[in-house]
Formats: sequence, C-alpha cells, structure tokens
Amino acid sequence: MKLHNYFRSSASYRVRIALNLKGLDYDYIPVHIARGDHLAGPFAAISADMLVPVLEDDGEHFSQSMAIMEYLDETQPEPPLLPRDPVGRARVRALSESIACEIHPVNNLRVLKYLVRELKLDDVAKNAWYRHWVRVGLEAFERQLAQLPAGSSYCYGDTPTMADCCLVPQIFNAQRFDCDLNGLPRTMAAFETCMQLDAFRRAQPSNCPDAES
Amino acid sequence: MKLHNYFRSSASYRVRIALNLKGLDYDYIPVHIARGDHLAGPFAAISADMLVPVLEDDGEHFSQSMAIMEYLDETQPEPPLLPRDPVGRARVRALSESIACEIHPVNNLRVLKYLVRELKLDDVAKNAWYRHWVRVGLEAFERQLAQLPAGSSYCYGDTPTMADCCLVPQIFNAQRFDCDLNGLPRTMAAFETCMQLDAFRRAQPSNCPDAES
Repeated sequence: MKLHNYFRSSASYRVRIALNLKGLDYDYIPVHIARGDHLAGPFAAISADMLVPVLEDDGEHFSQSMAIMEYLDETQPEPPLLPRDPVGRARVRALSESIACEIHPVNNLRVLKYLVRELKLDDVAKNAWYRHWVRVGLEAFERQLAQLPAGSSYCYGDTPTMADCCLVPQIFNAQRFDCDLNGLPRTMAAFETCMQLDAFRRAQPSNCPDAES
Repeated sequence: MKLHNYFRSSASYRVRIALNLKGLDYDYIPVHIARGDHLAGPFAAISADMLVPVLEDDGEHFSQSMAIMEYLDETQPEPPLLPRDPVGRARVRALSESIACEIHPVNNLRVLKYLVRELKLDDVAKNAWYRHWVRVGLEAFERQLAQLPAGSSYCYGDTPTMADCCLVPQIFNAQRFDCDLNGLPRTMAAFETCMQLDAFRRAQPSNCPDAES
C-alpha cells in the first residue's frame, strides 16, 4: 500500500492512524499541499479530486479519508474501527462526521486561503474564524460523548474507533491554532487515552518524513 | 420512524430520499432552523449536536445524514444504497463525501450567517463565496465520475446510491443560488436520471409540509 499524504493534513493523519491501528505497512508518499503540489503533476494524475490523502491498494486509488477508513475496515477487518452493532456504528460514524463534516471542512487550507486572499482577512480575523468553528464543533462533540455510557476510555467503548482517528488530528490542529480546549472533559480524556498508543503517536505530524517545524 | 428535518436543509433532503428509496414510511417533524428552532426547546433536548436531520428509530436518535444513511443501509438492506464490493463502496462513499465533506459544510446556513454577521460580507461577496465552493466541488465531482466506466445512468452503476442522495440536494442548492452548472455532463446526467424517480421528486423541498416559497 502507498499513502499519498501531507504531514500537516489532518485528513491524512486520520488514515495514518487507521493504517497503524490495523498494523498495515505502507509507503509514505509526501505531497506538499501548502506549496500546491496536489494541483498539478503526478499527484493530480492519480487524484480526481486533487485532495490528500489518496490510498493506493492493488492498483486502485482511493480518496476521501472517511471512505478510505471504511474501505480498510471492510478489507482488513481486524482490529475493527467500528462496533459490530448498527446503533454503535451509527454513533461512531456520527461522531466522526461531527469532525469530518462540521469542523474540518470549514477550516481547511483552501478555505483559509480564500479568507486571506479573497476576503482580505487579517490574521486576527482568520484565527477568530478558525477558533470559532473548532469551539462550536468540539462543544457539540462533547455533548454527544456526554450522552454515551460513562467509563469509555476512548470516544466510544474500550477500543479505538474511527471517531478517535478523527478526533486526535482535530485536537492537534486546535492546539496549533491555540484554540480553547477547556470544559471538554470527555473529549480531552479520549484524546489523552489515544495518545498513549503507539499507533496514534507514530502517525503524528512531527514524526512524518516530510515534517517541517 | 420519525425524521426531524427542515425542508430546505440539504442534509435532511438526503435522508428523505434514502427513506423513500427504501420504501420506509416516516413521520415528518419540521424543525425551523432558519428561525433557530434547533438551538433550544424540544429539538435541542434530543439532538446533542443541534443539527438536522435527526432520525428517530426504536427509541434511539441518530444524527449526521451520512451516518443515518449507513444505518438505514445496514438495518434495512434492500434496495442497497451502496454496491456490494469494497472498491465500489469506496467509490460511492468518496463521491458522497466530496459533497458532504467538501461542498456543503462550507456553504451551510451557519457559515453563511457568520460571513454576513461577523465578516460583514454583502450579498455579492456571500454569493461569490457560495458559488466558488459549489463550482470547485462539482468540478472535482465531475472528474471523479469521468474516471468511472461510461454508461452509468446514476452516479455509480445502474441504481441510485448514497452518492445520488447527496448529489441531488446539492444541485437543488446550486440552482437556488444560481451557480454555473455548465460543463458538468456526467454530474447533470445523473441528476436528471434521479429526478425521473418518484423517491427523489417526492422528497424535494417544495413538496415538504413546511415548505416556504
């Protein structure tokens, strides 16, 4: 397997965690999206949506991090990234999408570029935007966790799921932009639990071959 | 089943289509999100993330449209909203997420409100924002369709999938905001094919009990 990705892309980080959790080896192919390398050249030829990550497996190219994690879970079922029961699966997917569909898209690199280049926002206004959506989104995430049975060490149940694969990169981003993470006890407890695991630590941006400070 | 939703919410429209495709009856519970009815009162009590749609089934409440469609497909498998093979499932999920994670979140109501209230954008700038993300997103969608075998009447294969459930509401929104839909032949062909079906037509915003002009 090959993973075309970028150290700082949180969608890439999700898939790196999932691959590690499943114990799958992969070649790390860096794509420098801050420099625009995803918009032309060899990467654009394999990626119809010109976004990272792209997983290469058996000659096929797969895009969209959530779809990739589902694909991995279907083709390499152990250990599972989703519970076995439909209600549990719906809960984990909803938690995942609370990050992947509500927080991250509004704050990704191309949106921030639009804010600066087209709307002429200064750093203060851009950071306020970023922090607003992180805070609103994580508060909604916390409310969802609070409705689940107490005692889970991870987002859902006692093993890491797709929701944890989404949460950890989002918290990394939030910390990088100095977002307020107070008052999110279940969320931050899940983050801390995940960061005890080698699968999460090894996948973090600073450990990637293309990492920059 | 009950669906808490709003006629103009495209995430709600996705689930209405999915329920119709599967032939499932449901009670339509309107939540007036433009008026803020999702942020307080009875809806906030059942919805941890305070977003529509919420599906009620067997006393459980489910949020996030993509997670709800997956839940329906797992608990009511026929007719399927995803292909049987993992590669096909990954393609359909990636197409779905190209809309649900790339286009729609950047243009949803709360983001547009932030643009107007916090960033003081006028209508021209707000509409330019809207049209920009729709166009960029649908061009990426079209490129993905163009890589699939020719001859599909729908987004993927010969039956409607989750990707069509996402596409049709997005095109409705694009038309409402007068977005440029030229040069998207496969995308618009899939849209037209879907709109031949009662399941898609019946679910459209103008047919909802809470529809406003």
